[in-house]
Amino acid sequence: MIKLKRNERIGAIMKILSDRPNHIFTYNYFTDRLNAAKSTISEDIVIIKGMLEKLKLGKIETIPGASGGVKYTPQITEQMINDFLNEVTSSLTQKERIIPGGFIYMTDLLYDPSIVGMAGKIFAHKFINEDIDYVVTVETKGIPIALMTAQSLDVPLVIIRRNIKVTEGAAVNINYVTGSTKKIQTMSLSRKAVKAGDKVLVIDDFMKAGGTAKGICDMMKEFKAEVIGTGVFIATELPKEKLVDNYLPLLILKKIDEEAEEIIVKPNRELLNNID
Amino acid sequence: MIKLKRNERIGAIMKILSDRPNHIFTYNYFTDRLNAAKSTISEDIVIIKGMLEKLKLGKIETIPGASGGVKYTPQITEQMINDFLNEVTSSLTQKERIIPGGFIYMTDLLYDPSIVGMAGKIFAHKFINEDIDYVVTVETKGIPIALMTAQSLDVPLVIIRRNIKVTEGAAVNINYVTGSTKKIQTMSLSRKAVKAGDKVLVIDDFMKAGGTAKGICDMMKEFKAEVIGTGVFIATELPKEKLVDNYLPLLILKKIDEEAEEIIVKPNRELLNNID
Repeated sequence: MIKLKRNERIGAIMKILSDRPNHIFTYNYFTDRLNAAKSTISEDIVIIKGMLEKLKLGKIETIPGASGGVKYTPQITEQMINDFLNEVTSSLTQKERIIPGGFIYMTDLLYDPSIVGMAGKIFAHKFINEDIDYVVTVETKGIPIALMTAQSLDVPLVIIRRNIKVTEGAAVNINYVTGSTKKIQTMSLSRKAVKAGDKVLVIDDFMKAGGTAKGICDMMKEFKAEVIGTGVFIATELPKEKLVDNYLPLLILKKIDEEAEEIIVKPNRELLNNID
Repeated sequence: MIKLKRNERIGAIMKILSDRPNHIFTYNYFTDRLNAAKSTISEDIVIIKGMLEKLKLGKIETIPGASGGVKYTPQITEQMINDFLNEVTSSLTQKERIIPGGFIYMTDLLYDPSIVGMAGKIFAHKFINEDIDYVVTVETKGIPIALMTAQSLDVPLVIIRRNIKVTEGAAVNINYVTGSTKKIQTMSLSRKAVKAGDKVLVIDDFMKAGGTAKGICDMMKEFKAEVIGTGVFIATELPKEKLVDNYLPLLILKKIDEEAEEIIVKPNRELLNNID
């Protein structure tokens, strides 16, 4: 039987907790895995808690009772959000990103595990107290951020398809109108994917008028699920009024000027409200 | 200035390393962040190394020289793979998963962060010594596993689209024939996504004849990139000969019998070779 020293146990507990944020681990899990008494594990957890607070790396919550245990929530500091938003903004505003037609190339950022990981942590932090059951997105470019948000919230991801798929069985299909180009599009989601009464968080990569986000909300209504909020990586500044309320962008796209080769993006400073 | 005790430092270093597997952190990063001498951090790392080995939780590698530092690689044990494959197999063979037409519902598994996280760790473990530059997938259902594999390898993800997108600039488009249904399909990838000489790992959710995987390989040839291998979540047992070599399934689908309401899936035991 393995016997560990205190500092080894602390390393091990920290690793196990941070591999699965917001998941409740029972004390028994640690006593069995690390071959130590519950009181010893409790003391270890107190030390970890203090360390995380000092370094602002996260929070430990202990849940009492039979179904209780320990859970770790990564901490997001003002400085972390600021650094991240500044880094992404300065990358996004490089003029080489302008694509003919007035678009902006950003899939390298949207598919970068460390960027989407941090984006997911920020969204999770903003919605952690809302008892989210699922993160919902529509294919394709928002999937990585949505998955990382789901991982940080310790909930499953649901992906709405753009076309009807025979391989997913009975599905709900809806048509919706994109807000800016007024095109009619289809969304399809398997009947099995969401249950009535579920609370969902919508995540997407881009929002202009909000037509797609509105489509997702309509789809969720068909499932009698409740949309708690919508997080997007970047939203255009105009139109000011979007088709959905309660949306939270990380970045705001003010202007893409093809001729002047200029992209203006600003971080959404509202994200810094209520951060401890 | 924050001053930490040894066991607090060990918790902190473990957390920082495990949040970004396979990333090289310099000693300076830790001396600055934790306000400790390099010799102290070195001693802490030795303790973490010993703990990880005892518990088979991972490996620490120290890289000497100017660009050197410390990196953490999660460990995958035979038992972890076995437990995971057995859990997924028993979930996949529930008869409620049969969809009319002889399909199997598995998006709940393919979009579950803890399932795809483990699948990604297994693929990363198998290809960690191959100097992979990118993980490549084609939309949609393989994206979550591909992202988690990319995260575990600390490399970016590339997603090939099924349709040509105007928002991604100049793109390479290829037509390919699906191996089983012989339909002609299109794949599209931005010119900026991959560089000549890059080594890529292909990840997808499902393989029957291997037509899609072959299409990805053809696409990579257009970019003069080298495909090192192909990992799939589940592959059908037949046809035995696939259109690509060097493919690695986690699970093998032997049979879906709609009438008898029977699904036969077996774990790919070959995964257990060369696991320490």
